[in-house]
Amino acid sequence: MNNEGGETWSVFDVIGHLIHGEKTDWITRIEIILSEGANKEFVPFDRFAQLEESKGKSLEQILKEFLTARELSLKKLRGFKLTENDFNKTGIHPKFGSVTLSQLVAAWTVHDLDHISQISRVMSKQYKEQSGPWIEYMKILGQ
Amino acid sequence: MNNEGGETWSVFDVIGHLIHGEKTDWITRIEIILSEGANKEFVPFDRFAQLEESKGKSLEQILKEFLTARELSLKKLRGFKLTENDFNKTGIHPKFGSVTLSQLVAAWTVHDLDHISQISRVMSKQYKEQSGPWIEYMKILGQ
Repeated sequence: MNNEGGETWSVFDVIGHLIHGEKTDWITRIEIILSEGANKEFVPFDRFAQLEESKGKSLEQILKEFLTARELSLKKLRGFKLTENDFNKTGIHPKFGSVTLSQLVAAWTVHDLDHISQISRVMSKQYKEQSGPWIEYMKILGQ
Repeated sequence: MNNEGGETWSVFDVIGHLIHGEKTDWITRIEIILSEGANKEFVPFDRFAQLEESKGKSLEQILKEFLTARELSLKKLRGFKLTENDFNKTGIHPKFGSVTLSQLVAAWTVHDLDHISQISRVMSKQYKEQSGPWIEYMKILGQ
């Protein structure tokens, strides 16, 4: 088993999800918030797109793809030259309604950390049986 | 707050703990298991040594220290040229009794992942308030 059972995600699935986020979510939403246009609504994020988009690829391939996509995101982010005033600008989230750029950027950071934690958890479970009595000391194996 | 409240660890504390593990735990115990000596008992691991050892240092300093210690550990690990037979050899854990080299190495791996997950959790909590409504989507913020 390479996931946490049932429909849960493998590390491969998580990386695909992160790539899709780089391409359609975070930077795109920042651009909507910063735009002068009247329509500030975000397009709902597809949480299952990666299941199709990553099909037939290797883990190495999608890791490289993520690296490239993230580098591009960071380049764009720096390019915005965000000011303190920008961080208070808002967009319309399909579920939450009005959200600030500040909240979006914080959520992007926590989203990364959440999936790093998930990857650690999924990987650690591959070694659960092999760890023998140490299981007891490892909080992550009980999650 | 840079930890999870009370006596919980900050990222700084976790890195100190990992350094102490590199210096006194994993490789030292592998050496005991592989040794020809009659005494196969492990010295109990001090989980609080880092509170003294890291005092007055910067996070950057201890991150470099961990990197150096880990590189040395991996060099030693490769140097052991472990065979399949070696993985079945045993040592005496102060609490668990007889454990195999295989279990020790698996536990070392899970121990890393456990603390990566902890670091992600501690860091994510720094952005909890700032994430606004997204908190609801972030599993890690509820842990």
